[in-house]
Amino acid sequence: MNTDFRRMWAELGMDLDAHDALLEALNQGYRDIYLSQKNRPHGMRYFDFVLGQVHGQRIQELREEHQAGRKIIGSYCVFVPEEIVLAGNATLVGLCSGADFAMEEVEKVLPRNTCALIKSSFGFKLGKVCPFLEVSDMVVGENTCDGKKKSYETLRDLVDNMYVMDMPQMKTEEGRDLLRSEYKRFLQAVEELTGTSIDVTGLRQGIQTVNAKRQAMARLQRLRWADPAPISGLDGLLASQVFFYDNPERFTKSVNTLCDELEARVENKEGVMPQGTPRILMSGCPMAVPNWKMPYLVESAGGVIVGEESCVGERGNRNLVDDSGETLDELIEAIVDRYFQIECAIFTPNPDRLERIKKMYADSKADGVIHYSIQFCQPYIMESIPVEKALEAEDIPCLRVETDYSMEDAGQLSTRIEAFLEVLK
Amino acid sequence: MNTDFRRMWAELGMDLDAHDALLEALNQGYRDIYLSQKNRPHGMRYFDFVLGQVHGQRIQELREEHQAGRKIIGSYCVFVPEEIVLAGNATLVGLCSGADFAMEEVEKVLPRNTCALIKSSFGFKLGKVCPFLEVSDMVVGENTCDGKKKSYETLRDLVDNMYVMDMPQMKTEEGRDLLRSEYKRFLQAVEELTGTSIDVTGLRQGIQTVNAKRQAMARLQRLRWADPAPISGLDGLLASQVFFYDNPERFTKSVNTLCDELEARVENKEGVMPQGTPRILMSGCPMAVPNWKMPYLVESAGGVIVGEESCVGERGNRNLVDDSGETLDELIEAIVDRYFQIECAIFTPNPDRLERIKKMYADSKADGVIHYSIQFCQPYIMESIPVEKALEAEDIPCLRVETDYSMEDAGQLSTRIEAFLEVLK
Repeated sequence: MNTDFRRMWAELGMDLDAHDALLEALNQGYRDIYLSQKNRPHGMRYFDFVLGQVHGQRIQELREEHQAGRKIIGSYCVFVPEEIVLAGNATLVGLCSGADFAMEEVEKVLPRNTCALIKSSFGFKLGKVCPFLEVSDMVVGENTCDGKKKSYETLRDLVDNMYVMDMPQMKTEEGRDLLRSEYKRFLQAVEELTGTSIDVTGLRQGIQTVNAKRQAMARLQRLRWADPAPISGLDGLLASQVFFYDNPERFTKSVNTLCDELEARVENKEGVMPQGTPRILMSGCPMAVPNWKMPYLVESAGGVIVGEESCVGERGNRNLVDDSGETLDELIEAIVDRYFQIECAIFTPNPDRLERIKKMYADSKADGVIHYSIQFCQPYIMESIPVEKALEAEDIPCLRVETDYSMEDAGQLSTRIEAFLEVLK
Repeated sequence: MNTDFRRMWAELGMDLDAHDALLEALNQGYRDIYLSQKNRPHGMRYFDFVLGQVHGQRIQELREEHQAGRKIIGSYCVFVPEEIVLAGNATLVGLCSGADFAMEEVEKVLPRNTCALIKSSFGFKLGKVCPFLEVSDMVVGENTCDGKKKSYETLRDLVDNMYVMDMPQMKTEEGRDLLRSEYKRFLQAVEELTGTSIDVTGLRQGIQTVNAKRQAMARLQRLRWADPAPISGLDGLLASQVFFYDNPERFTKSVNTLCDELEARVENKEGVMPQGTPRILMSGCPMAVPNWKMPYLVESAGGVIVGEESCVGERGNRNLVDDSGETLDELIEAIVDRYFQIECAIFTPNPDRLERIKKMYADSKADGVIHYSIQFCQPYIMESIPVEKALEAEDIPCLRVETDYSMEDAGQLSTRIEAFLEVLK
């Protein structure tokens, strides 16, 4: 372990012992789940490195940016537009929320029946083990689901500079107006935080940088449609996870390098798993690092995941922002255009999501859909029943799973997954 | 049983056998819980009659209104403005949602981890036992919590004419704009349904009718502040419940008659329970008919409930609409003024609710607060932790309860309530 990192973590006010324990568990899990995979693309070495250094080198970079006067903004949701953050000469990072930590402390401030993702955000803060949170100059929440909306009222007392973005609930003209007005307010908040005046050139550059990231991820997504699949679902998910906290330019380059390799694999009909492996589309709640439970169980059971209809996945990556606008207002409108298309279950009604699942199922030549909900996530759990019914009405096999971050139900889940894969053969 | 009612229920498409079973349970519960109370005001006889006839005579009245061309609008929330409904020559009724019914059917369309209130709404529909729902020409839902918002997407397929009102999540200018715009859209929808053109005179009349109802309830509320309490919490709650479905003018008159009697009681220091009985303010989720579980347990344990900081209670009754406006826009603005003050936990942040609880605690000379949440109601459960902390910081005793409609936890709850009352003595 690099001792400089330990000094840095101490300076960030982190709990070193607790953090050591977390990193050990994380590294162990990564070895068991990721490094044990066979036939991985070489291009995944970069992501192995990033993950291995997730709390070290990347944090050091962010601190160096910070020391050079650049602000760091943390967020929990794909509705926070990185385009605007970059235009303000700031850096956006996704905040840790994929593992249970300090649950005893968490349940003093949040109800037990809160979803694992929200509890995890609080656990990483209360346990002082998330350097991304500690290095952030501003933490952005958003009124998406009830759980997040109400929990930010408590998180506000735990972090230094909490900013909350309001969100529409319907895709009406009024809903769109609210999103636009909130993005403009956020733009001002970024300007105030950074002391930068955001102009057309800067915003266009921000848009182009993020578009390039999304294009690289879309390319990766398309390559996963090949049969045999050139890359595992675990590795595909990892790229989507790193999307949220790596340096954008370096990330884009690394994904494209990976894609070059995968293109050759596809050309040579070389797969990470043999042709005929049951192909699964995952759909539902986001899977934040290090929540690799579902793809691990599915791929251990002999399936391969070929896409994620999820915020950490295709929903977060799809659609570019038109960068042709000549005024700030035009560019902001283009940003609203893109984000207002996100088919998050917080919207009512949300028919586009079902259409999206069906299209991804067809495009990726999947054999079945696993709908994944984090326990107590009302919006996705509520949607899962009509989604399952609609898919089955079109003879698309669907397995509905509701789980948390613990491994207690792993055996039971494996049994259900194996039975589902059996049906698909 | 009046056979005319049975014919009416059959004509409404209800399941007569299931409904018989429901009514029997309801009547039995009412006898055990309500009629066994000692020293009740005579004025409660009216409410006994209303409750006894809840699915009979009141439904017959509504059908007669309907046959005379008047439309019936059903709703699930205090944000649906009765003023506008009355101005459109229509009648607003609250829809049944206070008891578990047809749960096996409900759990085919809703997740098990859905709150009892929402499940109940579906159970009454799926079990065909709610004549209010069957007699309604339009059913109004609202995007308050995630549970309701998402469940209306499914309810839409089960009822004939579902209308959904969008709701703001923040008390900002944009939030207020959305509420105004939604109330204007609702006004148009009422006009379209009824074929009535709503004018200033009609809307002012609607406002005055509802104001009179609220004034009567506020008067009742103030009388409950007396020590000894002149009326039980069970009976106070019943009046708040009947508020939602009785004829407004008759209801107002009956509450005022009751209040006349209670005034005399207060004058004579005559209480329903002796002076010194521990006084409880209930705060939290609404209790719809026949959800009498908490007041029954509290008052059986030797306490008296002196107020409900709840939608079925003071939150639904407080604040009048200014009727002095001279244009439709002015009157609508006054309606927005009133409703935008409701301290529902769907708003973030929601500091006014805490202030309201403290004021009600002081006004009603309560000895302690019981915060009541229906299990899986995220907004109220989330708020309950900071509310409890804030109350206890001011030495206001607080008991946090999370429960559902079943009586399975009654023993455990009674033990906790008895211990809490013991502390208050």
